[in-house]
Amino acid sequence: MAEAFRGGSGVTDLFVTGPARTRHRDLVTAIAGAGIEVHVVSGEIMSELAQTVTPQGLLAVCGFVDVDLAAVTEPAPSLVALLANVRDPGNAGTVLRTADAAGASAVVFADASVDPYNGKCVRASAGSLFHVPVVAGASLDEAVAAMRQAGLRIVAADGRAERTLDDPEVQARLGEPTAWMFGNEAWGLPPGLVALADEPVAVPVYGKAESLNLAAAAAVCLYASARAQRVQSVIRRGDYE
Amino acid sequence: MAEAFRGGSGVTDLFVTGPARTRHRDLVTAIAGAGIEVHVVSGEIMSELAQTVTPQGLLAVCGFVDVDLAAVTEPAPSLVALLANVRDPGNAGTVLRTADAAGASAVVFADASVDPYNGKCVRASAGSLFHVPVVAGASLDEAVAAMRQAGLRIVAADGRAERTLDDPEVQARLGEPTAWMFGNEAWGLPPGLVALADEPVAVPVYGKAESLNLAAAAAVCLYASARAQRVQSVIRRGDYE
Repeated sequence: MAEAFRGGSGVTDLFVTGPARTRHRDLVTAIAGAGIEVHVVSGEIMSELAQTVTPQGLLAVCGFVDVDLAAVTEPAPSLVALLANVRDPGNAGTVLRTADAAGASAVVFADASVDPYNGKCVRASAGSLFHVPVVAGASLDEAVAAMRQAGLRIVAADGRAERTLDDPEVQARLGEPTAWMFGNEAWGLPPGLVALADEPVAVPVYGKAESLNLAAAAAVCLYASARAQRVQSVIRRGDYE
Repeated sequence: MAEAFRGGSGVTDLFVTGPARTRHRDLVTAIAGAGIEVHVVSGEIMSELAQTVTPQGLLAVCGFVDVDLAAVTEPAPSLVALLANVRDPGNAGTVLRTADAAGASAVVFADASVDPYNGKCVRASAGSLFHVPVVAGASLDEAVAAMRQAGLRIVAADGRAERTLDDPEVQARLGEPTAWMFGNEAWGLPPGLVALADEPVAVPVYGKAESLNLAAAAAVCLYASARAQRVQSVIRRGDYE
Protein backbone atom coordinates (compact mmCIF):
# COMPACT_ATOMS: atom_id res chain seq x y z
CA MET A 1 0.00 0.00 0.00
CA ALA A 2 2.59 2.54 1.13
CA GLU A 3 4.81 1.17 -1.68
CA ALA A 4 2.27 2.00 -4.35
CA PHE A 5 1.89 5.49 -2.96
CA ARG A 6 5.64 6.15 -2.63
CA GLY A 7 6.31 4.74 -6.09
CA GLY A 8 4.49 7.72 -7.60
CA SER A 9 2.71 5.17 -9.73
CA GLY A 10 -0.55 7.01 -10.17
CA VAL A 11 -2.83 6.12 -7.25
CA THR A 12 -6.18 7.66 -8.23
CA ASP A 13 -8.49 6.56 -5.40
CA LEU A 14 -8.21 5.15 -1.90
CA PHE A 15 -10.96 3.04 -0.29
CA VAL A 16 -10.69 2.70 3.47
CA THR A 17 -12.80 1.25 6.29
CA GLY A 18 -13.47 3.36 9.38
CA PRO A 19 -11.19 1.29 11.67
CA ALA A 20 -8.39 1.29 9.07
CA ARG A 21 -8.66 5.07 8.72
CA THR A 22 -8.05 5.37 12.48
CA ARG A 23 -5.24 2.80 12.45
CA HIS A 24 -3.38 4.37 9.51
CA ARG A 25 -4.33 8.01 10.14
CA ASP A 26 -1.00 9.49 8.98
CA LEU A 27 -0.91 7.51 5.74
CA VAL A 28 -4.54 8.35 4.91
CA THR A 29 -3.96 12.02 5.68
CA ALA A 30 -0.86 12.09 3.47
CA ILE A 31 -2.74 10.41 0.62
CA ALA A 32 -5.69 12.79 0.91
CA GLY A 33 -3.23 15.69 1.05
CA ALA A 34 -1.73 14.54 -2.23
CA GLY A 35 -5.07 15.15 -3.91
CA ILE A 36 -6.14 11.51 -4.06
CA GLU A 37 -9.82 10.84 -3.45
CA VAL A 38 -10.44 8.93 -0.20
CA HIS A 39 -13.68 6.89 0.09
CA VAL A 40 -14.76 5.46 3.45
CA VAL A 41 -16.57 2.12 2.95
CA SER A 42 -18.04 -0.62 5.17
CA GLY A 43 -16.20 -3.83 5.97
CA GLU A 44 -18.61 -5.73 3.68
CA ILE A 45 -17.83 -3.53 0.70
CA MET A 46 -14.09 -3.75 1.45
CA SER A 47 -14.30 -7.56 1.46
CA GLU A 48 -15.92 -7.48 -1.97
CA LEU A 49 -13.42 -4.96 -3.36
CA ALA A 50 -10.28 -6.60 -1.93
CA GLN A 51 -11.16 -10.17 -3.00
CA THR A 52 -9.27 -11.54 -0.03
CA VAL A 53 -10.42 -13.22 3.18
CA THR A 54 -8.85 -10.79 5.64
CA PRO A 55 -8.43 -7.43 3.86
CA GLN A 56 -6.21 -4.86 5.55
CA GLY A 57 -8.94 -2.22 5.35
CA LEU A 58 -7.08 -0.06 2.83
CA LEU A 59 -7.36 -0.43 -0.92
CA ALA A 60 -5.73 1.85 -3.49
CA VAL A 61 -6.73 2.10 -7.12
CA CYS A 62 -3.61 2.56 -9.26
CA GLY A 63 -2.90 3.04 -12.92
CA PHE A 64 -1.17 0.23 -14.77
CA VAL A 65 2.59 0.22 -14.24
CA ASP A 66 3.78 -2.24 -16.91
CA VAL A 67 6.05 -1.00 -19.66
CA ASP A 68 7.06 -2.34 -23.06
CA LEU A 69 10.22 -4.26 -23.92
CA ALA A 70 11.94 -1.24 -25.44
CA ALA A 71 11.64 0.60 -22.13
CA VAL A 72 13.60 -2.08 -20.23
CA THR A 73 16.39 -2.58 -22.79
CA GLU A 74 17.35 1.07 -23.15
CA PRO A 75 19.83 1.41 -21.46
CA ALA A 76 20.93 -2.24 -21.56
CA PRO A 77 20.08 -3.99 -18.27
CA SER A 78 22.48 -6.36 -16.52
CA LEU A 79 19.98 -8.74 -14.89
CA VAL A 80 16.47 -9.65 -16.07
CA ALA A 81 13.98 -12.42 -15.23
CA LEU A 82 11.91 -13.86 -18.08
CA LEU A 83 8.85 -15.79 -16.91
CA ALA A 84 7.81 -18.35 -19.53
CA ASN A 85 4.28 -19.60 -18.83
CA VAL A 86 4.49 -19.14 -15.06
CA ARG A 87 0.80 -19.69 -14.21
CA ASP A 88 0.66 -19.60 -10.42
CA PRO A 89 0.19 -16.00 -9.24
CA GLY A 90 1.85 -16.64 -5.86
CA ASN A 91 4.94 -18.06 -7.56
CA ALA A 92 5.10 -15.25 -10.11
CA GLY A 93 4.74 -12.58 -7.41
CA THR A 94 7.43 -14.24 -5.29
CA VAL A 95 9.84 -14.36 -8.24
CA LEU A 96 9.11 -10.66 -8.87
CA ARG A 97 9.91 -9.89 -5.22
CA THR A 98 13.10 -11.97 -5.38
CA ALA A 99 14.17 -10.34 -8.66
CA ASP A 100 13.70 -6.94 -7.01
CA ALA A 101 15.77 -8.00 -4.00
CA ALA A 102 18.51 -9.32 -6.29
CA GLY A 103 18.64 -5.96 -8.05
CA ALA A 104 17.18 -7.11 -11.38
CA SER A 105 16.33 -4.36 -13.88
CA ALA A 106 13.11 -5.93 -15.16
CA VAL A 107 10.75 -8.91 -14.99
CA VAL A 108 9.00 -10.02 -18.19
CA PHE A 109 5.71 -11.95 -17.87
CA ALA A 110 5.88 -13.75 -21.21
CA ASP A 111 3.63 -16.04 -23.25
CA ALA A 112 0.90 -17.63 -21.07
CA SER A 113 2.26 -16.30 -17.77
CA VAL A 114 -0.24 -15.02 -15.20
CA ASP A 115 -1.39 -11.39 -15.31
CA PRO A 116 0.98 -9.39 -13.05
CA TYR A 117 -2.10 -7.49 -11.78
CA ASN A 118 -3.68 -10.68 -10.44
CA GLY A 119 -4.44 -9.93 -6.77
CA LYS A 120 -2.43 -12.87 -5.44
CA CYS A 121 0.54 -11.92 -7.61
CA VAL A 122 0.41 -8.31 -6.44
CA ARG A 123 0.27 -9.43 -2.78
CA ALA A 124 3.09 -12.00 -3.19
CA SER A 125 5.25 -9.31 -4.80
CA ALA A 126 5.05 -7.38 -1.49
CA GLY A 127 5.37 -4.03 -3.25
CA SER A 128 7.96 -5.09 -5.82
CA LEU A 129 5.43 -4.59 -8.64
CA PHE A 130 6.02 -0.88 -7.93
CA HIS A 131 9.83 -1.17 -7.71
CA VAL A 132 10.88 -3.19 -10.76
CA PRO A 133 9.80 -2.41 -14.32
CA VAL A 134 7.41 -5.17 -15.42
CA VAL A 135 6.62 -6.15 -19.00
CA ALA A 136 3.24 -7.90 -19.40
CA GLY A 137 1.91 -9.85 -22.35
CA ALA A 138 5.14 -10.08 -24.37
CA SER A 139 5.88 -13.19 -26.37
CA LEU A 140 8.93 -15.10 -25.18
CA ASP A 141 10.37 -14.97 -28.71
CA GLU A 142 10.20 -11.18 -28.75
CA ALA A 143 11.55 -10.87 -25.22
CA VAL A 144 14.52 -13.15 -25.93
CA ALA A 145 15.30 -11.27 -29.15
CA ALA A 146 15.13 -7.90 -27.38
CA MET A 147 17.41 -9.04 -24.54
CA ARG A 148 19.91 -10.60 -26.92
CA GLN A 149 19.89 -7.42 -29.01
CA ALA A 150 20.69 -5.51 -25.80
CA GLY A 151 23.75 -7.72 -25.27
CA LEU A 152 22.38 -10.05 -22.59
CA ARG A 153 23.19 -13.73 -22.38
CA ILE A 154 19.97 -15.81 -22.25
CA VAL A 155 20.23 -18.61 -19.67
CA ALA A 156 17.42 -21.13 -19.22
CA ALA A 157 16.97 -22.37 -15.65
CA ASP A 158 16.39 -26.03 -16.47
CA GLY A 159 16.64 -28.81 -13.90
CA ARG A 160 17.46 -31.27 -16.70
CA ALA A 161 20.47 -29.31 -17.98
CA GLU A 162 23.83 -31.10 -17.92
CA ARG A 163 25.72 -28.12 -16.55
CA THR A 164 24.95 -26.74 -13.13
CA LEU A 165 25.69 -23.40 -11.50
CA ASP A 166 28.79 -25.04 -10.00
CA ASP A 167 30.33 -25.73 -13.43
CA PRO A 168 33.51 -23.60 -13.74
CA GLU A 169 32.52 -22.35 -17.21
CA VAL A 170 29.06 -21.38 -15.98
CA GLN A 171 30.66 -19.66 -12.98
CA ALA A 172 33.03 -17.76 -15.26
CA ARG A 173 30.11 -16.28 -17.21
CA LEU A 174 27.78 -15.52 -14.29
CA GLY A 175 29.01 -11.93 -14.08
CA GLU A 176 27.98 -11.15 -17.66
CA PRO A 177 24.69 -9.34 -18.35
CA THR A 178 22.12 -12.12 -18.11
CA ALA A 179 18.43 -12.75 -18.72
CA TRP A 180 17.34 -15.81 -16.72
CA MET A 181 14.43 -17.71 -18.26
CA PHE A 182 12.15 -19.51 -15.76
CA GLY A 183 9.48 -22.00 -16.83
CA ASN A 184 6.13 -23.23 -15.59
CA GLU A 185 6.02 -24.35 -11.93
CA ALA A 186 4.77 -27.84 -12.85
CA TRP A 187 6.55 -28.78 -16.07
CA GLY A 188 9.45 -26.34 -16.26
CA LEU A 189 10.77 -25.32 -19.67
CA PRO A 190 9.99 -27.67 -22.58
CA PRO A 191 12.90 -28.30 -25.02
CA GLY A 192 11.43 -25.87 -27.57
CA LEU A 193 11.75 -22.99 -25.11
CA VAL A 194 15.13 -24.11 -23.74
CA ALA A 195 16.35 -23.95 -27.34
CA LEU A 196 15.69 -20.19 -27.40
CA ALA A 197 18.39 -19.68 -24.75
CA ASP A 198 22.14 -19.49 -25.23
CA GLU A 199 22.57 -22.17 -22.57
CA PRO A 200 20.49 -24.24 -20.13
CA VAL A 201 21.84 -24.36 -16.57
CA ALA A 202 20.55 -26.40 -13.61
CA VAL A 203 20.61 -25.51 -9.95
CA PRO A 204 22.68 -28.39 -8.52
CA VAL A 205 20.73 -30.86 -6.38
CA TYR A 206 23.06 -32.24 -3.70
CA GLY A 207 20.38 -34.27 -1.90
CA LYS A 208 17.53 -36.53 -3.01
CA ALA A 209 14.98 -33.91 -4.12
CA GLU A 210 13.97 -34.30 -7.76
CA SER A 211 13.89 -30.56 -8.26
CA LEU A 212 13.49 -27.22 -6.54
CA ASN A 213 10.29 -25.22 -6.61
CA LEU A 214 10.28 -22.30 -9.02
CA ALA A 215 10.68 -19.51 -6.46
CA ALA A 216 13.60 -21.26 -4.72
CA ALA A 217 15.37 -22.01 -8.02
CA ALA A 218 14.88 -18.41 -9.14
CA ALA A 219 16.33 -17.13 -5.87
CA VAL A 220 19.47 -19.25 -6.25
CA CYS A 221 19.96 -18.32 -9.93
CA LEU A 222 19.27 -14.58 -9.64
CA TYR A 223 21.47 -14.22 -6.56
CA ALA A 224 24.28 -16.19 -8.20
CA SER A 225 24.30 -13.69 -11.09
CA ALA A 226 23.80 -10.65 -8.86
CA ARG A 227 26.76 -11.58 -6.67
CA ALA A 228 29.03 -12.43 -9.62
CA GLN A 229 28.13 -9.15 -11.33
CA ARG A 230 29.01 -7.22 -8.18
CA VAL A 231 32.32 -9.02 -7.73
CA GLN A 232 33.17 -8.43 -11.39
CA SER A 233 32.27 -4.78 -11.17
CA VAL A 234 34.60 -4.41 -8.16
CA ILE A 235 37.41 -6.06 -10.15
CA ARG A 236 36.71 -3.81 -13.14
CA ARG A 237 36.77 -0.70 -10.99
CA GLY A 238 40.07 -1.97 -9.55
CA ASP A 239 41.52 -2.18 -13.06
CA TYR A 240 41.16 1.53 -13.54
CA GLU A 241 42.53 2.64 -10.23
CA MET B 1 3.44 -40.95 -3.57
CA ALA B 2 6.15 -43.01 -5.25
CA GLU B 3 8.60 -41.24 -2.91
CA ALA B 4 6.84 -42.48 0.20
CA PHE B 5 6.81 -46.00 -1.16
CA ARG B 6 10.47 -45.98 -2.25
CA GLY B 7 11.56 -44.42 1.02
CA GLY B 8 10.67 -47.65 2.82
CA SER B 9 8.92 -45.43 5.30
CA GLY B 10 6.20 -47.82 6.35
CA VAL B 11 3.26 -47.39 3.97
CA THR B 12 0.50 -49.50 5.57
CA ASP B 13 -2.49 -48.87 3.29
CA LEU B 14 -3.18 -47.48 -0.16
CA PHE B 15 -6.52 -45.92 -1.15
CA VAL B 16 -7.10 -45.61 -4.87
CA THR B 17 -9.94 -44.59 -7.19
CA GLY B 18 -10.84 -46.83 -10.14
CA PRO B 19 -9.46 -44.42 -12.79
CA ALA B 20 -6.24 -43.89 -10.81
CA ARG B 21 -5.76 -47.65 -10.50
CA THR B 22 -5.88 -47.88 -14.29
CA ARG B 23 -3.61 -44.85 -14.77
CA HIS B 24 -0.96 -46.03 -12.29
CA ARG B 25 -1.35 -49.77 -12.80
CA ASP B 26 2.36 -50.62 -12.38
CA LEU B 27 2.74 -48.62 -9.17
CA VAL B 28 -0.43 -50.06 -7.64
CA THR B 29 0.61 -53.59 -8.61
CA ALA B 30 4.06 -53.07 -7.06
CA ILE B 31 2.52 -51.70 -3.86
CA ALA B 32 0.04 -54.58 -3.61
CA GLY B 33 2.90 -56.99 -4.32
CA ALA B 34 4.81 -55.54 -1.36
CA GLY B 35 2.03 -56.73 0.95
CA ILE B 36 0.39 -53.31 1.39
CA GLU B 37 -3.41 -53.34 1.54
CA VAL B 38 -5.01 -51.62 -1.46
CA HIS B 39 -8.54 -50.21 -1.06
CA VAL B 40 -10.52 -49.04 -4.09
CA VAL B 41 -12.76 -46.08 -3.19
CA SER B 42 -15.10 -43.68 -4.99
CA GLY B 43 -14.07 -40.21 -6.08
CA GLU B 44 -16.26 -38.72 -3.33
CA ILE B 45 -14.53 -40.70 -0.61
CA MET B 46 -11.12 -39.84 -2.08
CA SER B 47 -11.99 -36.12 -1.96
CA GLU B 48 -12.86 -36.44 1.72
CA LEU B 49 -9.73 -38.45 2.51
CA ALA B 50 -7.28 -36.32 0.54
CA GLN B 51 -8.54 -32.93 1.81
CA THR B 52 -7.55 -31.30 -1.44
CA VAL B 53 -9.60 -29.89 -4.32
CA THR B 54 -8.15 -32.04 -7.09
CA PRO B 55 -6.81 -35.24 -5.49
CA GLN B 56 -4.54 -37.39 -7.65
CA GLY B 57 -6.66 -40.49 -6.97
CA LEU B 58 -3.99 -42.22 -4.91
CA LEU B 59 -3.56 -41.85 -1.17
CA ALA B 60 -1.07 -43.78 0.95
CA VAL B 61 -1.26 -44.15 4.71
CA CYS B 62 2.26 -44.01 6.16
CA GLY B 63 3.78 -44.29 9.60
CA PHE B 64 5.32 -41.20 11.15
CA VAL B 65 8.83 -40.52 9.87
CA ASP B 66 10.07 -37.84 12.30
CA VAL B 67 13.03 -38.59 14.52
CA ASP B 68 14.44 -37.03 17.70
CA LEU B 69 17.30 -34.56 17.93
CA ALA B 70 19.82 -37.18 19.02
CA ALA B 71 19.21 -39.11 15.79
CA VAL B 72 20.22 -36.15 13.61
CA THR B 73 23.33 -35.10 15.55
CA GLU B 74 24.99 -38.51 15.63
CA PRO B 75 27.10 -38.42 13.49
CA ALA B 76 27.52 -34.63 13.46
CA PRO B 77 25.72 -33.10 10.44
CA SER B 78 27.24 -30.37 8.28
CA LEU B 79 24.08 -28.52 7.23
CA VAL B 80 20.77 -28.26 9.11
CA ALA B 81 17.69 -25.99 8.82
CA LEU B 82 16.01 -24.92 12.07
CA LEU B 83 12.48 -23.58 11.56
CA ALA B 84 11.54 -21.22 14.38
CA ASN B 85 7.77 -20.64 14.42
CA VAL B 86 7.29 -21.13 10.68
CA ARG B 87 3.49 -21.28 10.61
CA ASP B 88 2.60 -21.45 6.92
CA PRO B 89 2.56 -25.09 5.77
CA GLY B 90 3.38 -24.24 2.15
CA ASN B 91 6.43 -22.24 3.22
CA ALA B 92 7.62 -24.93 5.63
CA GLY B 93 7.22 -27.67 3.01
CA THR B 94 9.07 -25.58 0.43
CA VAL B 95 11.97 -24.98 2.84
CA LEU B 96 12.07 -28.73 3.53
CA ARG B 97 12.24 -29.41 -0.22
CA THR B 98 14.97 -26.78 -0.66
CA ALA B 99 16.95 -28.13 2.30
CA ASP B 100 16.78 -31.59 0.72
CA ALA B 101 17.98 -30.22 -2.64
CA ALA B 102 20.84 -28.38 -0.89
CA GLY B 103 21.92 -31.64 0.74
CA ALA B 104 20.97 -30.70 4.32
CA SER B 105 21.16 -33.51 6.88
CA ALA B 106 18.04 -32.54 8.81
CA VAL B 107 15.19 -30.05 9.17
CA VAL B 108 13.95 -29.22 12.67
CA PHE B 109 10.35 -27.92 13.05
CA ALA B 110 10.86 -26.05 16.33
CA ASP B 111 8.68 -24.17 18.82
CA ALA B 112 5.34 -23.15 17.26
CA SER B 113 6.22 -24.28 13.72
CA VAL B 114 3.53 -26.04 11.68
CA ASP B 115 3.11 -29.82 11.94
CA PRO B 116 5.30 -31.38 9.21
CA TYR B 117 2.43 -33.84 8.55
CA ASN B 118 0.05 -31.00 7.64
CA GLY B 119 -1.28 -31.94 4.17
CA LYS B 120 -0.14 -28.70 2.51
CA CYS B 121 3.32 -29.07 4.03
CA VAL B 122 3.62 -32.67 2.82
CA ARG B 123 2.55 -31.66 -0.70
CA ALA B 124 4.88 -28.61 -0.81
CA SER B 125 7.78 -30.84 0.28
CA ALA B 126 7.28 -32.82 -2.97
CA GLY B 127 8.55 -36.04 -1.37
CA SER B 128 11.36 -34.47 0.67
CA LEU B 129 9.57 -35.38 3.92
CA PHE B 130 10.68 -38.91 3.03
CA HIS B 131 14.26 -37.95 2.08
CA VAL B 132 15.51 -35.72 4.88
CA PRO B 133 15.32 -36.62 8.57
CA VAL B 134 12.74 -34.33 10.17
CA VAL B 135 12.52 -33.43 13.86
CA ALA B 136 9.03 -32.34 14.97
CA GLY B 137 7.98 -30.60 18.15
CA ALA B 138 11.45 -29.76 19.49
CA SER B 139 11.99 -26.52 21.36
CA LEU B 140 14.35 -24.11 19.62
CA ASP B 141 16.47 -23.92 22.80
CA GLU B 142 17.01 -27.67 22.79
CA ALA B 143 17.65 -27.80 19.07
CA VAL B 144 20.23 -25.00 19.21
CA ALA B 145 21.96 -26.65 22.18
CA ALA B 146 22.06 -30.01 20.41
CA MET B 147 23.48 -28.53 17.20
CA ARG B 148 26.08 -26.50 19.06
CA GLN B 149 27.06 -29.58 21.04
CA ALA B 150 27.54 -31.38 17.71
CA GLY B 151 29.97 -28.66 16.62
CA LEU B 152 27.69 -26.66 14.32
CA ARG B 153 27.75 -22.89 14.05
CA ILE B 154 24.26 -21.44 14.58
CA VAL B 155 23.48 -18.69 12.05
CA ALA B 156 20.22 -16.74 12.23
CA ALA B 157 18.84 -15.66 8.83
CA ASP B 158 17.79 -12.16 9.81
CA GLY B 159 16.99 -9.43 7.30
CA ARG B 160 17.88 -6.82 9.93
CA ALA B 161 21.40 -8.16 10.54
CA GLU B 162 24.29 -5.80 9.87
CA ARG B 163 26.39 -8.40 8.10
CA THR B 164 25.22 -9.96 4.85
CA LEU B 165 26.22 -13.14 3.06
CA ASP B 166 28.61 -10.98 0.99
CA ASP B 167 30.65 -9.96 4.05
CA PRO B 168 34.16 -11.45 3.70
CA GLU B 169 34.12 -12.81 7.27
CA VAL B 170 30.73 -14.42 6.73
CA GLN B 171 31.97 -15.88 3.45
CA ALA B 172 35.07 -17.27 5.17
CA ARG B 173 32.92 -19.23 7.63
CA LEU B 174 30.22 -20.46 5.23
CA GLY B 175 32.02 -23.74 4.71
CA GLU B 176 31.89 -24.64 8.41
CA PRO B 177 29.19 -27.02 9.70
CA THR B 178 26.17 -24.76 10.03
CA ALA B 179 22.63 -24.79 11.37
CA TRP B 180 20.61 -22.03 9.68
CA MET B 181 17.77 -20.66 11.80
CA PHE B 182 14.75 -19.35 9.85
CA GLY B 183 11.94 -17.38 11.48
CA ASN B 184 8.25 -16.80 10.96
CA GLU B 185 7.20 -15.77 7.41
CA ALA B 186 5.53 -12.56 8.63
CA TRP B 187 7.71 -11.24 11.44
CA GLY B 188 11.00 -13.11 11.01
CA LEU B 189 13.15 -13.84 14.07
CA PRO B 190 12.53 -11.62 17.12
CA PRO B 191 15.70 -10.42 18.95
CA GLY B 192 15.25 -13.03 21.68
CA LEU B 193 15.60 -15.85 19.15
CA VAL B 194 18.36 -14.16 17.16
CA ALA B 195 20.29 -14.02 20.45
CA LEU B 196 20.35 -17.83 20.57
CA ALA B 197 22.50 -17.87 17.42
CA ASP B 198 26.25 -17.37 17.12
CA GLU B 199 25.64 -14.72 14.50
CA PRO B 200 22.79 -13.10 12.56
CA VAL B 201 23.33 -12.81 8.80
CA ALA B 202 21.15 -11.09 6.19
CA VAL B 203 20.63 -12.01 2.58
CA PRO B 204 21.81 -8.83 0.82
CA VAL B 205 19.05 -6.80 -0.85
CA TYR B 206 20.49 -5.06 -3.91
CA GLY B 207 17.19 -3.59 -5.10
CA LYS B 208 14.28 -1.87 -3.39
CA ALA B 209 12.50 -4.88 -1.85
CA GLU B 210 12.18 -4.61 1.92
CA SER B 211 12.89 -8.31 2.35
CA LEU B 212 12.77 -11.70 0.70
CA ASN B 213 10.08 -14.24 1.35
CA LEU B 214 11.08 -17.08 3.66
CA ALA B 215 11.48 -19.79 1.02
CA ALA B 216 13.60 -17.57 -1.23
CA ALA B 217 15.84 -16.45 1.66
CA ALA B 218 16.25 -20.06 2.80
CA ALA B 219 17.23 -21.11 -0.73
CA VAL B 220 19.94 -18.44 -0.94
CA CYS B 221 21.31 -19.20 2.56
CA LEU B 222 21.28 -23.01 2.32
CA TYR B 223 22.84 -23.02 -1.13
CA ALA B 224 25.53 -20.54 -0.04
CA SER B 225 26.56 -22.93 2.74
CA ALA B 226 26.21 -26.05 0.60
CA ARG B 227 28.45 -24.64 -2.13
CA ALA B 228 31.06 -23.33 0.33
CA GLN B 229 31.13 -26.69 2.12
CA ARG B 230 31.72 -28.48 -1.17
CA VAL B 231 34.49 -26.11 -2.23
CA GLN B 232 36.12 -26.45 1.19
CA SER B 233 35.91 -30.22 1.06
CA VAL B 234 37.63 -30.19 -2.35
CA ILE B 235 40.41 -28.01 -0.90
CA ARG B 236 40.76 -30.30 2.11
CA ARG B 237 40.97 -33.36 -0.07
CA GLY B 238 43.63 -31.52 -2.13
CA ASP B 239 45.66 -30.94 1.06
CA TYR B 240 46.12 -34.64 1.55
CA GLU B 241 47.01 -35.55 -1.99
